Amino acid sequence: MAKDALTRRDILSRAGLGLAGAVGLGAIGCATASAPAAASAPADGAPVAATPRVSDFPYQKHLRPAYRLDAGAVKEAAYHAYYAGGCCHGTYSALLGHLAATAGAPFDQLPLDFGRFGIGGIELYGSICGAVLGGIMIVNQIVADPKARAAMMTDLMRWYERASFPSYVPAATDAAEKGLTRDFSAANVKKLQVVPRSHLCHASVSGWCTANRVAANGADKKARCARLTADVAGRTVEVINAHLAGASPAAAAIDAASASCVSCHTPASTDLPVASGMECGACHTDKQKDHPGGKRTRT
Amino acid sequence: MAKDALTRRDILSRAGLGLAGAVGLGAIGCATASAPAAASAPADGAPVAATPRVSDFPYQKHLRPAYRLDAGAVKEAAYHAYYAGGCCHGTYSALLGHLAATAGAPFDQLPLDFGRFGIGGIELYGSICGAVLGGIMIVNQIVADPKARAAMMTDLMRWYERASFPSYVPAATDAAEKGLTRDFSAANVKKLQVVPRSHLCHASVSGWCTANRVAANGADKKARCARLTADVAGRTVEVINAHLAGASPAAAAIDAASASCVSCHTPASTDLPVASGMECGACHTDKQKDHPGGKRTRT
Repeated sequence: MAKDALTRRDILSRAGLGLAGAVGLGAIGCATASAPAAASAPADGAPVAATPRVSDFPYQKHLRPAYRLDAGAVKEAAYHAYYAGGCCHGTYSALLGHLAATAGAPFDQLPLDFGRFGIGGIELYGSICGAVLGGIMIVNQIVADPKARAAMMTDLMRWYERASFPSYVPAATDAAEKGLTRDFSAANVKKLQVVPRSHLCHASVSGWCTANRVAANGADKKARCARLTADVAGRTVEVINAHLAGASPAAAAIDAASASCVSCHTPASTDLPVASGMECGACHTDKQKDHPGGKRTRT
Repeated sequence: MAKDALTRRDILSRAGLGLAGAVGLGAIGCATASAPAAASAPADGAPVAATPRVSDFPYQKHLRPAYRLDAGAVKEAAYHAYYAGGCCHGTYSALLGHLAATAGAPFDQLPLDFGRFGIGGIELYGSICGAVLGGIMIVNQIVADPKARAAMMTDLMRWYERASFPSYVPAATDAAEKGLTRDFSAANVKKLQVVPRSHLCHASVSGWCTANRVAANGADKKARCARLTADVAGRTVEVINAHLAGASPAAAAIDAASASCVSCHTPASTDLPVASGMECGACHTDKQKDHPGGKRTRT
């Protein structure tokens, strides 16, 4: 009972989000909440070190060299923020709130509510998973090197295609999580897992709900996506922390079957060229068993 | 010759982007470029009207009631910005640059380079068309009403599925546009048009290149996507201006064939539920001709 009695405020406070204070509860105005002392004019007339501005983008240059995000705090916050505003709000506000609370400007000048539009693959359209989009937008805020940025974003999407969701087990059940018909406990969650094979909300949600024989708009679906949101937020922390530690992140290679597809359907071809980094077979099921012309591998 | 001799600087200046000044040329720091006079402390000690802050989101409340965007200027800027940083950078920087130049704060405090990550469906992954994502992120900055926001974003994605691309004919050819093998002139561009049926870069680009028998990484593809970027930026202006004029935007309904699909595959079903607002047939070609169980319409 004590576990379930935690309020969202308690949880956000534990997650280091007390400063931002309003994850999922509305826009905040906190540009001065953590203005560094350096912004005060020095007595000796030396140049003032200005507070980093939102326009001075991307923001890796404003982070201390030893700065790292806390995956545990971010995951728990993301899980709860899902219930306040959806998957994209979950990852985006949890990551940004943590950055604002622990790194200050310019993260604390950005609106925590910017990710709400990503819910359900952008306003329920089934496009890119909002949790992934939220993580990608945070990577985009931080990483300066375009090659590293591309590798990190590709990693997030390709890792998502292959991950078994959900896996996170929250420290405290959210008050909004009611009416479940499936068992999401640590002892049982693995039995609910499905590998989406696609980074699109449509395929990911529809496939999981079909496998578990639950509705795509019910409590079980929400519980799954809340935990998936925590999983994606955690992966985003891992990818960002590795980059901040100086590692050169490299996304996993495309799967062998898709590599075979694009070995003929190259972007440079003028006959059925393909522009994609996704797993082909997740959508093109017909091409796997009845490929036009009978060709399935490069001859 | 005089038409082609225009520099990008000339064009941006014409487009009202002279103040932002650096569309596609790097991040800018322009928080003070258009600080309104109201930010100065009044002599009589009355409260200071603060410059709108980035955290005071969304930004519709900072726009004058009569404010409207100029579609022509934004489209031409988007076309050229495509060549500076891709499709998402094209729409995002053109729209944001125009807002910064014509509406001031807080748009002029935001980095123009935030949309570069969206290139080619997010770092060439083939996910959501970057031009659409750029437009969506600008809608997200402005619109306060969640229902209107959802309708406007759905409109952009569904309109994109059904539009004939490309249609824009630039006022001045970009200096980077060289080596075309297809004729994109006003007299011929309609012959190159394809309806993508999907808002995903992968399907949109692959389908157009296949229909026109050109590579997916060549000059013709880029010329197509540069014009499509202008088309999407123009549609985004239309949608935003209609909203600012007080119209209640409503996205077009899902197509009849997909409506038939989701009449059985409802989100509420526990047997093959579907979460999607997309056109089903664009990807599920096999379900159109050989639906499992022989059912193709609701019985």
